[in-house]
Amino acid sequence: MSKIFNFSAGPAIMPKEVLRQAQAELLDYQGSGMSVMEMSHRGDEYIAIQAEAEKNIRTLLGVSDAYHVLFLQGGATTEFALVPMNLLHPGQSADYTLSGAWGKKAVDEAKGIGKVNVIADTNAARPCRVPTPAELKETPGAAYLHITSNETISGAQWKTFPKSTAPLVADMSSDIASRVIDVNQFGLIYAGAQKNLGPSGVTVVIVRKDLAEGARKDIPSIFRYQTHAENESMLNTPPCFSIYLLMLVTRWIAKQGGVAAVQKINDAKAAKLYAAIDASQFYRGAANPAHRSTMNVTFTLPSEDLEKKFAKQAEAEGLKQLKGHRSVGGLRASIYNAFPAEGVDALVSFMREFEKKNG
Amino acid sequence: MSKIFNFSAGPAIMPKEVLRQAQAELLDYQGSGMSVMEMSHRGDEYIAIQAEAEKNIRTLLGVSDAYHVLFLQGGATTEFALVPMNLLHPGQSADYTLSGAWGKKAVDEAKGIGKVNVIADTNAARPCRVPTPAELKETPGAAYLHITSNETISGAQWKTFPKSTAPLVADMSSDIASRVIDVNQFGLIYAGAQKNLGPSGVTVVIVRKDLAEGARKDIPSIFRYQTHAENESMLNTPPCFSIYLLMLVTRWIAKQGGVAAVQKINDAKAAKLYAAIDASQFYRGAANPAHRSTMNVTFTLPSEDLEKKFAKQAEAEGLKQLKGHRSVGGLRASIYNAFPAEGVDALVSFMREFEKKNG
Repeated sequence: MSKIFNFSAGPAIMPKEVLRQAQAELLDYQGSGMSVMEMSHRGDEYIAIQAEAEKNIRTLLGVSDAYHVLFLQGGATTEFALVPMNLLHPGQSADYTLSGAWGKKAVDEAKGIGKVNVIADTNAARPCRVPTPAELKETPGAAYLHITSNETISGAQWKTFPKSTAPLVADMSSDIASRVIDVNQFGLIYAGAQKNLGPSGVTVVIVRKDLAEGARKDIPSIFRYQTHAENESMLNTPPCFSIYLLMLVTRWIAKQGGVAAVQKINDAKAAKLYAAIDASQFYRGAANPAHRSTMNVTFTLPSEDLEKKFAKQAEAEGLKQLKGHRSVGGLRASIYNAFPAEGVDALVSFMREFEKKNG
Repeated sequence: MSKIFNFSAGPAIMPKEVLRQAQAELLDYQGSGMSVMEMSHRGDEYIAIQAEAEKNIRTLLGVSDAYHVLFLQGGATTEFALVPMNLLHPGQSADYTLSGAWGKKAVDEAKGIGKVNVIADTNAARPCRVPTPAELKETPGAAYLHITSNETISGAQWKTFPKSTAPLVADMSSDIASRVIDVNQFGLIYAGAQKNLGPSGVTVVIVRKDLAEGARKDIPSIFRYQTHAENESMLNTPPCFSIYLLMLVTRWIAKQGGVAAVQKINDAKAAKLYAAIDASQFYRGAANPAHRSTMNVTFTLPSEDLEKKFAKQAEAEGLKQLKGHRSVGGLRASIYNAFPAEGVDALVSFMREFEKKNG
């Protein structure tokens, strides 16, 4: 295997020891003679896997019994529809903040389902940023307030969450389990697993039990959080292998010392990269320093041509997937939990060399 | 690894050589230095995987350019909602046949979405069977006619598909790619992958292009077949690893000689097992001989106690997951494409021995 560093924004790098364990037991899970992929989801072996996945999420994030932890399918993009379908009752409206491409997708889908008020829009702000809590004027009686905790594409991240009257709903796909949060601030959290929790194909939904219970009942049962809760995420066949990997990844996070320990490492990795950007006139951070993501470090070079050259040369040196998202350009280094510190060092060295030759 | 035979109804047994290849390249897909799970779904490597998966499905099943082949999430249970949401326009009704537990779930979900006519109901028939084409009285102007091509729980299978005026929609989760069919008879086919095509977490939808295009546009975009078609099943992050395994499994089916060759093997496996049942007064087939499934062989013993004893002793001898579905009891041997003929022989021997001791 060639030495590479995978800066992909998602699906993204996974802990090597998790992959090694999955490899070792791929044909024979703990002496069962079966792969996890081949097991009935109603069998004891698989039920234990999913139960541990839930327990690990609860322990790592501090999720109380007031919340359900669900394992669903379809990623955040499906939640963009499910959240308003469940929580936005006829006659109500929902508040949304729009701070980037993902927030916009959430707003666009919700608009087809019910009344939406975009109460803060920083999508066009450059440098990129999220709204400050002070900028938010909640609509009285709103069903919920929706935020995108980390905008993967722009690299802007909420550092303090708004204290809303309405239940706070957050798309945490790209920063769940990367920093300590107080789950009790939220009514609902959702996250596609494919950045910090595992492979694509499973979505974690943490929803306050009273919200799930009081949600709309006149929608298809497969789209109701309450039905999934009542069936312990086995209303339909779960994406068993993805959940198994999520279980292994959450076990790995616990082994690192939990989310607080992982956050320290993430902060240090991000700080090193932002310091390299700030130390130069050649590189420019794309996000407002107060809102800089610790997960997706976005930056630009003096010209598009140089950015292309940078991405191409970096790729050739094993620094993969640094090209920014096709919708915004620039460069992006996604440095999720599983991304190693030495990969950040390698990128910083490459940046210095590249500037010397092209600056 | 102990020698076992996995009769699970799904998630189910997968070809050993597929699992071995997945294992070999789990940490390093073809020299990329990355697992398939870690790759951007927009990268060339993964795009080639998904393209081959689609090509294989088209070749194996003979899917013409008049159809889209989509890779979605949520299994057949999600399709129970998506089919009527897409195809059942206001003012229309849809015809359903109800021949078992899965047909009933499809009907129940559709009823909450639009007007449903159950035009044939064989759910209570014993032995289990599906309606005969002659029993079907189509509703004039129906948006579509829905069938469950194989009822996994009861073990009843459509041998000849109805020639309907309305587009024929089939849940083929448990017998897709197990026998030759004429896709052109259908408006839409859907199947969770976890029986014949791969692990759980990916759903194959084959939909006639004009049906997708003419479908309802006033539903969330993530639930529209047309949006998925326009985005080549990348509207949201696909379940990449499940699709990769589906690609390997379809490649394996092609290597067996394609669906026609696999059907011959399936027919022989099923015939052997049904012959063992018919040769005895001790075992009784649960399905009408004319409708017997080649995928799920269901049978009963003289008493529930004997059935429990049978399942338990079989399990101890490595014949796993023979207990019938909790909703109907009895015994069930699921013998999908990847299930080896020697496993059928082992079961037949066990049945003879068990009858000798307990008959």
